[in-house]
Amino acid sequence: MSHSVISIEVERTLAGSSNRAQEVLAVEEPLEIRLNGRVASITMRTPGNDEELAIGFLFTEGILRDGLSIAGVRACGSGRVVRVELADEAEVSFARLDRNFYTTSSCGVCGKTSLDAIETTARWPIRPAAASVAVTPALILSLPAALREAQEVFASTGGLHASALFDDTGRLLLVREDVGRHNALDKVIGAELLAGRLPAHDRVLLVSGRASFELVQKAAMAAIPVLAAIGAPSSLAAELARRVGMTLIGFVREGRFNVYAGAERVVHG
Amino acid sequence: MSHSVISIEVERTLAGSSNRAQEVLAVEEPLEIRLNGRVASITMRTPGNDEELAIGFLFTEGILRDGLSIAGVRACGSGRVVRVELADEAEVSFARLDRNFYTTSSCGVCGKTSLDAIETTARWPIRPAAASVAVTPALILSLPAALREAQEVFASTGGLHASALFDDTGRLLLVREDVGRHNALDKVIGAELLAGRLPAHDRVLLVSGRASFELVQKAAMAAIPVLAAIGAPSSLAAELARRVGMTLIGFVREGRFNVYAGAERVVHG
Repeated sequence: MSHSVISIEVERTLAGSSNRAQEVLAVEEPLEIRLNGRVASITMRTPGNDEELAIGFLFTEGILRDGLSIAGVRACGSGRVVRVELADEAEVSFARLDRNFYTTSSCGVCGKTSLDAIETTARWPIRPAAASVAVTPALILSLPAALREAQEVFASTGGLHASALFDDTGRLLLVREDVGRHNALDKVIGAELLAGRLPAHDRVLLVSGRASFELVQKAAMAAIPVLAAIGAPSSLAAELARRVGMTLIGFVREGRFNVYAGAERVVHG
Repeated sequence: MSHSVISIEVERTLAGSSNRAQEVLAVEEPLEIRLNGRVASITMRTPGNDEELAIGFLFTEGILRDGLSIAGVRACGSGRVVRVELADEAEVSFARLDRNFYTTSSCGVCGKTSLDAIETTARWPIRPAAASVAVTPALILSLPAALREAQEVFASTGGLHASALFDDTGRLLLVREDVGRHNALDKVIGAELLAGRLPAHDRVLLVSGRASFELVQKAAMAAIPVLAAIGAPSSLAAELARRVGMTLIGFVREGRFNVYAGAERVVHG
């Protein structure tokens, strides 16, 4: 059994009768992310791929500009701390560490809007539809089953979000899971950054739950052109996707889906 | 139509055919919470009950100790800012505003553990089972239907979390909704604090999704003895519930549920 899940004893009630049983839960534990010795964040996450999570978080929040200056990433403190060391601080926005609030929430109510802030922070613009991927309805509808198959170990807990990266033929490349959906996506983007595979111009991302502003923002930082969600998007998620030129698809289930932004990448027939 | 939802045009695909349609989305917008002029937090939330959200957040994060010293709460800035003014600063932990991280994540990896931090921060301990509520399986199983009925306006979006407070006979007292489940619970607790109804020793709380550490922590701050979730709890949610003496119930659906902590409050037959 993975370190990502634990088994505990519960009292299970069904149809009026009750018995003791073992139940598998998703693990949730705090992780401290340190950048050159400074605390950048403490996040509640499911253990596993913590280095990817740290790098992905620092990148999608606009603190780390790229992977070139990373001198080292290592877990310590009984797995509760990840230390990220940089060879060169030139590419780091240390100012963001001092501001208390990160990209997702920093500018909504002051001079600039949240949407403007994303546009100015993103390192790579998303390519226009003609120069990025096209997806068919059949490809979109195939994504959830591919994800379910890949995460069957965790299906038992019912408590883990997943983010999955596909190529433009619908082939599954990478799955990461976490109790926090933002963490699952940070792990995917961190893995891609560490592997030198960003910007992700020709990728399709599937998230297991709803599509919030934060998930669209993180995907935009990696220049992912197509984001599909099994659940509903929020208003601001749809608005941001339209603003940055991302295709946002929601409610991918039971042979149907809705396209909230960037419908030109969905090719019928 | 409420300010909490908006209608946008989408491209809807079903069984191979595609058409333009109107779809209702949950609104997600940033809210800045200011305490005596200082920014305490910026959170992405669904508009509605913003004063309750601000007060609930400040209270459940341990920044505000009670409702007695609140001189004023008002929304301004086109509804994007809530200003909380205090008559007396004695009961406020301003230090928490400077620490960058709040109760949920402040102490996980340093000297004290997250669990210890909750115990020392909570204003009122949860009463032992003999001195608080008892719930029957029938009562527990009745909660989700009562919640669904109360939130039918929002059911259309599929994108809102809900928190609902019940009395110990299963009567629904209060429902609040939000794209963020922590916000929905902060609204409930803020409403109760403003009404002078905390500690909530004889209440039962239902949350629409999963039970994270953060939700158990917030419920514990209000001394709520029973927390039921339609989804799965995390490992740390179960651990914290056991530590603080809360009854934690998960997977309340289809005539069944599991009790992860505090089974002595569930009375059979």
